[in-house]
Amino acid sequence: MNCFNVGSISQYGGRAGKLRLPSGVVVETPMFMPVATKMSVKTLDPRELKETGTRSLITNGFLLSLEPGSDVIRSLGGMHSMMDWDGGIFSDSGGFQFIRKGFDANILEEGVHLRSPFTGVKVFVTPESVVDMHIRHGVDVGMVLDHCPPFPSTRAQTIDSVNRTVYWAKRSKLRAGADGMEEMLPEGRSMPLFFAITQGGVEKDLREECTRKLVEMDFPGYGIGGLSIGESKEDMFRSLGSSTSLIPEDRPRYFMGVGDPDAVVRSVLSGVDVFDSVFPTRNARHRSVFTHEGRENIRAAKWRGIDSPIMEDCDCSVCKRFSRGYMYHLFKAEEPLGPRLATIHNVHYLQELVKRIRIKIIENELDPRISAAEIMG
Amino acid sequence: MNCFNVGSISQYGGRAGKLRLPSGVVVETPMFMPVATKMSVKTLDPRELKETGTRSLITNGFLLSLEPGSDVIRSLGGMHSMMDWDGGIFSDSGGFQFIRKGFDANILEEGVHLRSPFTGVKVFVTPESVVDMHIRHGVDVGMVLDHCPPFPSTRAQTIDSVNRTVYWAKRSKLRAGADGMEEMLPEGRSMPLFFAITQGGVEKDLREECTRKLVEMDFPGYGIGGLSIGESKEDMFRSLGSSTSLIPEDRPRYFMGVGDPDAVVRSVLSGVDVFDSVFPTRNARHRSVFTHEGRENIRAAKWRGIDSPIMEDCDCSVCKRFSRGYMYHLFKAEEPLGPRLATIHNVHYLQELVKRIRIKIIENELDPRISAAEIMG
Repeated sequence: MNCFNVGSISQYGGRAGKLRLPSGVVVETPMFMPVATKMSVKTLDPRELKETGTRSLITNGFLLSLEPGSDVIRSLGGMHSMMDWDGGIFSDSGGFQFIRKGFDANILEEGVHLRSPFTGVKVFVTPESVVDMHIRHGVDVGMVLDHCPPFPSTRAQTIDSVNRTVYWAKRSKLRAGADGMEEMLPEGRSMPLFFAITQGGVEKDLREECTRKLVEMDFPGYGIGGLSIGESKEDMFRSLGSSTSLIPEDRPRYFMGVGDPDAVVRSVLSGVDVFDSVFPTRNARHRSVFTHEGRENIRAAKWRGIDSPIMEDCDCSVCKRFSRGYMYHLFKAEEPLGPRLATIHNVHYLQELVKRIRIKIIENELDPRISAAEIMG
Repeated sequence: MNCFNVGSISQYGGRAGKLRLPSGVVVETPMFMPVATKMSVKTLDPRELKETGTRSLITNGFLLSLEPGSDVIRSLGGMHSMMDWDGGIFSDSGGFQFIRKGFDANILEEGVHLRSPFTGVKVFVTPESVVDMHIRHGVDVGMVLDHCPPFPSTRAQTIDSVNRTVYWAKRSKLRAGADGMEEMLPEGRSMPLFFAITQGGVEKDLREECTRKLVEMDFPGYGIGGLSIGESKEDMFRSLGSSTSLIPEDRPRYFMGVGDPDAVVRSVLSGVDVFDSVFPTRNARHRSVFTHEGRENIRAAKWRGIDSPIMEDCDCSVCKRFSRGYMYHLFKAEEPLGPRLATIHNVHYLQELVKRIRIKIIENELDPRISAAEIMG
């Protein structure tokens, strides 16, 4: 059975759909996932997350397999149970980490040799081990192992990464479909969906080739990876289009690492259904909050003593309860409650944005020139 | 009208009462107040605070008058409104701060010259300015300005501080009763109660003298200050007794800065009704939580991967939802949610402790040899 239904497609390409996750949670799309790298959206309790309108989050399965370890996660009932989160959980494979320093990654055909930055222990990550890991964590959607080339890369490097990504996707698919895999699940959980990730940098032909080959393997959904890592906006959206245009209509398209409000709007118009990003949460911790004037600095002198909410007409639990003056004070006093409240507001802003985009799609009113601020206005 | 009613007194001296605050909140005693020095109990939202059973908290009015400033607090509707807290708010006068470094305090008969550690600006604090400050902040209970001598002090220093404390209390009382003071209140708030603070170090005669003189002035309640700052437990409880034994039965007795569970039990037996302390919150942030085994370190290796709550049979929202294994992981990963959840548990522990003590008093079963652990067992 297909996990995804597209209900409406607006004339300019935006899609409103429903994604059914293995845990039974049904998520309306477009949807935005806050990032809970280490099984916590920084500063928030899952109950607050729910109040922001969040229905799914994404963790970093790879980092968590190193610490606290997949054995621990499985024995504690899986990620949902550990986090007390009854929404959806997507989980990343770690492919993106290998381009970062600190892992000493050595990428081979067979898999990736690396060193845990937590313990110094050497590990060997393979497409198969990543599938197993996701199952043991009991997540809803596991991203398969991909090879994300750094930006910029040579054409040869990009070709190499596409080939490896496709090869690894094939092995992942095989592993996920093997007999008896369910036995690795935490008690009471269902088998995850496995999404492939398209690579190809900003080279049109390579993006298309990668997407086509992955689509041939028939995954239940597709991540669009290797973008928003330093390339121009123009290159990013062009490359995004090269991927989305080739993914079948009934498959969810997940644009990885994108959460800038205007980029979200534009990506939806390009056919994207799912997003994740640290953008709202990291900004919040750095005292930057979304308002009708764009992003504002909570510590700006003009916020001192002001008796209005962060954003007028905002329905979030913070704007309904606290003033700019109090927010300014909390950040100035370095109270941990400050980043926490700012995070709630920013995540709610993104959730409200995708909710409004969805309505506009259904009513066929999503104008391609509209900005996020206009949608939220 | 008296703000306090003693309902029951157990045979060994414990009192179960009700304290009616100006905001209309009625708090059952013995009661424990978490510390929200800068208008936030570190890491917590007032909604969570309520869930822990907390009915009143204490802020540091003096520090807050420096930053964000009493003008700002008043214009934002007072502390309750700024914090979105509909429980009680006690507020400290700053007397305790003057023995700390960083304020350059120069204590005179007229008042205290000091320098704001935030802005470097010089301020002159008087008993009258403290009364005004509390009114402008709209708190429920304002502690009057006292002179807390450091520990150890000479007898001469202690005599001096007692004299000044009594003199300042007299001026505070006069100021609080002056005409038209209500005009300084934030909109919609009621006049605070002003509690005096007994000093006298660990010298029986000076404690008694100070207490007797303050009692003559007939305050609605009394703080017992200048203890738990380095003296022996024996000296502390003896001195506490010198104060409580002289305070009229129908006046609440607030033992300032005490939150160690066993000290709470013993103090209640000595006739104390109200407590405040950073003990549960500061310990939580330093990964130390109350359990049936005493205080335990969340990062202890034996907590790794354990699928039981911080404390068996604990009703707090953390123990009902999260495992020791997850707490261990959060602290190891330095996730801000870790200290937050630990704080909820520890504050709930104190609230549950005073609740059980209250029941034991009413049932006249508060044995003077009982430990906090036995009460919580």
